[in-house]
Amino acid sequence: MKKLKRGSRLIEMTQFLLQRPHTLIPLTTFADRYQSAKSSISEDIVMIKELFEEEGLGEVLTIAGAAGGVKYVPRVAREEAEAYVAQICAELGQAERVLPGGYLYMSDLLGRPQVVREAGKLFASVFADRTIDVIMTVETKGIPLAYATASFLNVPVVIVRRDAKVTEGSAVSINYISGSAKRIQTMSLARRLLRQKARVLIIDDYIKAGGTVRGMIDLLGEFEAELVGVGIFAESGDAQDRLVDDVISLVKLQKVDERARVAQLTAGNFLEQLTSKQENDENEH
Amino acid sequence: MKKLKRGSRLIEMTQFLLQRPHTLIPLTTFADRYQSAKSSISEDIVMIKELFEEEGLGEVLTIAGAAGGVKYVPRVAREEAEAYVAQICAELGQAERVLPGGYLYMSDLLGRPQVVREAGKLFASVFADRTIDVIMTVETKGIPLAYATASFLNVPVVIVRRDAKVTEGSAVSINYISGSAKRIQTMSLARRLLRQKARVLIIDDYIKAGGTVRGMIDLLGEFEAELVGVGIFAESGDAQDRLVDDVISLVKLQKVDERARVAQLTAGNFLEQLTSKQENDENEH
Repeated sequence: MKKLKRGSRLIEMTQFLLQRPHTLIPLTTFADRYQSAKSSISEDIVMIKELFEEEGLGEVLTIAGAAGGVKYVPRVAREEAEAYVAQICAELGQAERVLPGGYLYMSDLLGRPQVVREAGKLFASVFADRTIDVIMTVETKGIPLAYATASFLNVPVVIVRRDAKVTEGSAVSINYISGSAKRIQTMSLARRLLRQKARVLIIDDYIKAGGTVRGMIDLLGEFEAELVGVGIFAESGDAQDRLVDDVISLVKLQKVDERARVAQLTAGNFLEQLTSKQENDENEH
Repeated sequence: MKKLKRGSRLIEMTQFLLQRPHTLIPLTTFADRYQSAKSSISEDIVMIKELFEEEGLGEVLTIAGAAGGVKYVPRVAREEAEAYVAQICAELGQAERVLPGGYLYMSDLLGRPQVVREAGKLFASVFADRTIDVIMTVETKGIPLAYATASFLNVPVVIVRRDAKVTEGSAVSINYISGSAKRIQTMSLARRLLRQKARVLIIDDYIKAGGTVRGMIDLLGEFEAELVGVGIFAESGDAQDRLVDDVISLVKLQKVDERARVAQLTAGNFLEQLTSKQENDENEH
């Protein structure tokens, strides 16, 4: 890359950092890349850090020392999170979204890349301080959310299949009880997709009784992998009646009126997580 | 947002544009956002445009007039595309990737957000000049690729299901012949996910005989939707024996040795598309 002046450097470093969240980048990388002195790079980083933090794009951490560098940690501002969730609740609360059986139609919403991307950023903010090796989801509708989260946390995704597939090689299968329908179903994961002791974050689109997530957790056991957290786009039903605990949700279905075909939603419990994180930070300082 | 100086403006505009590809943004949006004169904003945009184009991040188009503004069109540089594809071919050509039946194991690669993101950027570059309303894929492994492409093209994704699901409401189903296995299968799409006359880009992970893609095209017919193009991560077999034409692939399986369990891959035909686009541009100028 040719030598860049400050303005061009700021543009380039911004896009470089945004594309590499949760990645430690040594200052020498930038100094070499732009043929600039480290002191200039440090000044640039201060500007980027201030702007990112003021505008709620996330933290830019600078780590001193020989093994140091700069790391971009995406975090949403509380206002942004509240505005997003309010918009999702409003859209999902529109008429005609409740299907026979009380299911809520969300596929159009989860088909919009901006909606999915922002959900991923919220999950990445909530789980930013946990050590995560891999994100797990089960086909189908959780997949986009899992990848969006993964792109902000810079970790890979493994997809649990409803059946073992010939294109994935040997697989570990388990049976589980789908909580709502009480049917025995099978899910499987390719053996080579998950290493032992991996620390796993589960992301999915919907939880009610929790049978599917329970199945994924059982599958983790087969791999001797460890559960780090569970992030769900929309939760329904009572958390106490659920087969899994500690679910973090973005929105919560409060009431589904099957006759009027309309649902009432509120923000999920993830906002509490954002708050407590900020409070922790304040307590630490 | 408070008034920003040039350096901070450049950082903010860069992230703003990167998050909103293929979206026309009036200059007044930036002028209001940063409380700056339009002339300053124009100078900023020139800097961003030059840097983006030099570094192969894409085009920044400026459209003059009252209905004008600025639009970021992601495009990969040819070198970046070639380096990416060479890396994918090398990784997929490693030993132990060929599974019984001659299938190539790709799930780990397609689990890495950076790999998927870059594939999406390549597809978005190839199809940047076509009018696309929606991207269609079929569960499961094409989904991340479809969303990555959609995020660069700023269009929604619809997911064709292998079975009609209760959570999606009324659906249109068709039968199709899976080309390789010659089995009759069913695929379906929720009726409200695709409007009539929509212009659809199909994205999937793998094609051999083309039965699945043929099925998706037949499904488009049921919605009176229009096919704009087909982008596939990895193609196999002879294009002439295929049930669909005009497939654009990123990589091509040239030879699969089932006994040695190793495959040979080369770049797919998408590089020709990049070339001809650039040549068109040169001819136009």
